[in-house]
Amino acid sequence: MPHDTHETAPTRFVEASGIRFAYRRFGRPGGTPLLLLNYFAANLDNWDPRVTNGFAAERDVILVDYPGIGGSSGETPSSVAALTKDCVEFCRALNLTRFDLVGFSLGGMIAQQLGAEYPALIRRILMLGTGPRGGEGMVFDDLWVEELDDEVGLLMKAFFTQSEPSQAAGRAYIERLKRRVVDRDAPVSKPAAIAQLAAIREWGGIPQKDRFAMLGQIHHPTLVVHGNNDVVVLPINAFLLAEHLPNAQLIMYPDASHGSQSQHGEVFLEHAKLFLYR
Amino acid sequence: MPHDTHETAPTRFVEASGIRFAYRRFGRPGGTPLLLLNYFAANLDNWDPRVTNGFAAERDVILVDYPGIGGSSGETPSSVAALTKDCVEFCRALNLTRFDLVGFSLGGMIAQQLGAEYPALIRRILMLGTGPRGGEGMVFDDLWVEELDDEVGLLMKAFFTQSEPSQAAGRAYIERLKRRVVDRDAPVSKPAAIAQLAAIREWGGIPQKDRFAMLGQIHHPTLVVHGNNDVVVLPINAFLLAEHLPNAQLIMYPDASHGSQSQHGEVFLEHAKLFLYR
Repeated sequence: MPHDTHETAPTRFVEASGIRFAYRRFGRPGGTPLLLLNYFAANLDNWDPRVTNGFAAERDVILVDYPGIGGSSGETPSSVAALTKDCVEFCRALNLTRFDLVGFSLGGMIAQQLGAEYPALIRRILMLGTGPRGGEGMVFDDLWVEELDDEVGLLMKAFFTQSEPSQAAGRAYIERLKRRVVDRDAPVSKPAAIAQLAAIREWGGIPQKDRFAMLGQIHHPTLVVHGNNDVVVLPINAFLLAEHLPNAQLIMYPDASHGSQSQHGEVFLEHAKLFLYR
Repeated sequence: MPHDTHETAPTRFVEASGIRFAYRRFGRPGGTPLLLLNYFAANLDNWDPRVTNGFAAERDVILVDYPGIGGSSGETPSSVAALTKDCVEFCRALNLTRFDLVGFSLGGMIAQQLGAEYPALIRRILMLGTGPRGGEGMVFDDLWVEELDDEVGLLMKAFFTQSEPSQAAGRAYIERLKRRVVDRDAPVSKPAAIAQLAAIREWGGIPQKDRFAMLGQIHHPTLVVHGNNDVVVLPINAFLLAEHLPNAQLIMYPDASHGSQSQHGEVFLEHAKLFLYR
């Protein structure tokens, strides 16, 4: 029997600490699960099927909505630390005791907090389009929840560069997001997006001392992936991660913004496999 | 009949513009040749057999001594621009009209000059442990030709970090350099090393304007590879290359200094293949 995919996996629910988490689990069962943590104001349908199905061809993939996002109940926390605690409760409810982690943008911030606070849960970490606590230009002054009213416009502007090849990759990406037709996720509410914006802004504040101290606590093999022209999380932040994390490999793709792993999906999946399976 | 390898390929000679170039050519014949340009004060025997044989398993590999270095006659030029001209003459003598290029450190500087001045000669470029003209901290104040008297000590200090895994990789690397027993290259003379040191220092001087202008002229698909703790060419220089080259992918390896492609040889060869063959 063929495995479920991004398009066919049913949305399921699990209760943990008073929250009913919406999640999907699909791909090749068995082995170390691969948990994917999503970006700001994104629900289960905002994952690129090219990426999720690419992983699912070889891995037991789990997508989850943060509290108060999409189909998950509860109030959306306004700090990465609180989001991390909720994530741990979700993992316990699913009996995920050791997994690989893909964190994209906000998800990469949670991945760092998880790696530092709950190291035993995690085997390897992929950090996509993210930056360290107190990174460079990570207060997200330019980002407003009103921009979410034009989702396609925002994605084309933030995830892809203005070059024609990148814009073409963006259009293909937008089409892929429609591939799942049945059992789509609930939209992200404005209050939930506002809370998450507060969370990423808090993360971006520069600490008064020991700016990158958290990174020294994350000893997991880590793959940092970034676009060389990311307008949301400046590329220097990926460099800072690679410089300060004890065991991180950095891959930066050309002519790419915040959606570099989608634009360069084919080679990204090859790179991710090399990293995850060696 | 098995192909020649790093260990068995005879040293050959070709005349171009008054210089008798020493070179070796081995691996799988046919296809686009792969020309390797070496680092400061290094001769043919200073290439890591793990790397050269890794390439040669699938490619027609060419190693060459710069003028006045090892077995090559002539005076060693003291600028990257002049070294580049000599390199072009060598390519013409071998009738290399289009090739892939691997430039390590000084070789990566020549690769940039070649890419900007002779774009049609080159298909793809790998830049290892190198930086842009006028990069950060690239005046090489700490480097003295006297250090070459203790070659092993210099390599262990400059090519590998002080961590035990990196030092162990260094010891293995030093052993690999001895694998070729017959027909070894002539040593590098002190005057030749002094001239090359002048060349890399000149390259590192920051231009008064348009600091990274040359990079905008290099449109070749480029793979930049660097150690995240390179003490010879600071890692920020690899980031600058990825930021300013129009079409560069960057890969940075953890706990690695100037010899990152040797320390992480296995995954480096996989990454290089993905880049060269896609």
